[in-house]
Amino acid sequence: MKKGNTIFFANKPKVRSYAAICGSKEREGVAGRYADVALADDMYGESTYEKAECKMLSNAVSLAVEKGGLTDGEVDALLSGDLLTQIISASFAARDFQFPYLGLYSACSTMSEGMLLAAALVDGGYAKNCVAATGSHFASAERQYRYPLELGCTRPPQSQWTVTGAGACVVSSQSGAVRIVNATLGRVRDWGVTDVNNMGAAMAPAAADTVIRHFKDTDAQPEDYDLIITGDLGALGSRIFKDLLWEKGYDPSRHVDCGEMIYKVVEDEFQGGSGAGCSAVMMNSYFFSKMQAGLYKRVLFAATGALLSTVSSGQGESIPCISHAVELEAGYDG
Amino acid sequence: MKKGNTIFFANKPKVRSYAAICGSKEREGVAGRYADVALADDMYGESTYEKAECKMLSNAVSLAVEKGGLTDGEVDALLSGDLLTQIISASFAARDFQFPYLGLYSACSTMSEGMLLAAALVDGGYAKNCVAATGSHFASAERQYRYPLELGCTRPPQSQWTVTGAGACVVSSQSGAVRIVNATLGRVRDWGVTDVNNMGAAMAPAAADTVIRHFKDTDAQPEDYDLIITGDLGALGSRIFKDLLWEKGYDPSRHVDCGEMIYKVVEDEFQGGSGAGCSAVMMNSYFFSKMQAGLYKRVLFAATGALLSTVSSGQGESIPCISHAVELEAGYDG
Repeated sequence: MKKGNTIFFANKPKVRSYAAICGSKEREGVAGRYADVALADDMYGESTYEKAECKMLSNAVSLAVEKGGLTDGEVDALLSGDLLTQIISASFAARDFQFPYLGLYSACSTMSEGMLLAAALVDGGYAKNCVAATGSHFASAERQYRYPLELGCTRPPQSQWTVTGAGACVVSSQSGAVRIVNATLGRVRDWGVTDVNNMGAAMAPAAADTVIRHFKDTDAQPEDYDLIITGDLGALGSRIFKDLLWEKGYDPSRHVDCGEMIYKVVEDEFQGGSGAGCSAVMMNSYFFSKMQAGLYKRVLFAATGALLSTVSSGQGESIPCISHAVELEAGYDG
Repeated sequence: MKKGNTIFFANKPKVRSYAAICGSKEREGVAGRYADVALADDMYGESTYEKAECKMLSNAVSLAVEKGGLTDGEVDALLSGDLLTQIISASFAARDFQFPYLGLYSACSTMSEGMLLAAALVDGGYAKNCVAATGSHFASAERQYRYPLELGCTRPPQSQWTVTGAGACVVSSQSGAVRIVNATLGRVRDWGVTDVNNMGAAMAPAAADTVIRHFKDTDAQPEDYDLIITGDLGALGSRIFKDLLWEKGYDPSRHVDCGEMIYKVVEDEFQGGSGAGCSAVMMNSYFFSKMQAGLYKRVLFAATGALLSTVSSGQGESIPCISHAVELEAGYDG
């Protein structure tokens, strides 16, 4: 069923299991306490950053499948993507498995896009178990989007820190303590921001657009949710997001941002975390485990993505952004 | 419903309308006679190749929506991707529309991945009209994957020519002469090919894997189809594909390849066309119109994608490939 841009899942697919792997910097914060694996060395035994990123993603998928008590043969599809050119982390990770693969690209909103499509496939009866997964790596993202680390460039105060980490969850027709109730599809929003170091400001309008449409489509109010989670707006982006919600008459006090939460607030991180791995790690460690424990019952998860490339920025384009949202409900099983 | 890796659509979503735009080189061949727009100048009035690619894609989407008698408000989602870093053509094209956008990356198999997911969303009742679209541009792909054109590098005989063009179709719960019956999800296959100029050889095993699984899942034989269409294997890749089918006991004589068909066979094209635009243009011009006219009744469309990047190749990796297939049926309306 569908209303506005929100699709409702009659059978409420379950989050059967989830897993997260985080890097050494993330290990010092909340993610380190809840992730399945917290790396001491971000190279993860590999020779390149890209291969380390791929290995994190592949292992997060394996772990989630294993924790769900499933074999590879019981998985119907992996829905995944990442930030690198031609999403090589996801595609090369998919090579490790015998089940089908649907490649996605939605920048840092890949986690919610994957959950949304996985839920549709499961709810529609086209699949029993789908894995939604994504990740990122600080070092590969820096050289992909900004400068090689070796140059030692300074970072402006509005910048964020790309999370090293990966997360995966199994969306299933069977048991799971968290259910996916509905999903609001994101639209591309572009308010003309051209500063590639200010992703929070670029993405906030897309997040606000999706969250407000979600409230309208579901006849809900912000107070109906225990948490309204955005992906990686960071501290500055979150303030803009809150302003935009206030402006339209919605109380943003239940809002939290994965990017703001993931690091211990020390000066170097500036606005907090970003990257596809940011919300993937936080959802698949802290948030799902707290939902499973009953701390949060009704949650809206709106990951946020900036759809730029170095080519588009080099050609003078502004930054189009998107945010896909899924509504989650806890406290059920079976 | 699902059997093996194939999902069956109970309501058989329709291809309500379709549109294709092709470049000046493609204009000389079969695509030029069937595409809605055949460009005289591949720059399409834009200042960069990337912007020309984006404009083709955006206009193909607009045209398909218009030909379907729809307004933007009646479209539930655009499912699209392309070959450029961070799929900027698709994401920037999506900025032109008010409807939601689901970004995909499946290299040159994006057309069938988009149709597959659009069909699942429509069949499951989550959407009424979804647009599946993709495209590519010879000049932007050359500098993305190989060398800038200005260098004037020579091309080896096993190489293919990236198609300049875009195609889009509206997958709908309502009228349309072509229906999507089922879809077989692709798995990543990597037979160790490392030659980035020999995509056909890299992709043929993925295509054969999907097509053979499709036959098994649907209890069909190749003779049951009027056509078995692959995306962009080219002449050499098609020969390998046919060999692989023979080897497993399937007769490949109904097989045609969009990459082999799209150009007039002159020496410069070597193995034929490639790129996400290759099958997108051929399906959304020649093939859909011939199906609509009743020439072909039952068709299997398996677009083919090579999931490499310059980074992965530079790091010594081989080329993982994928192929998603959709079965199409013609001769129905209403």
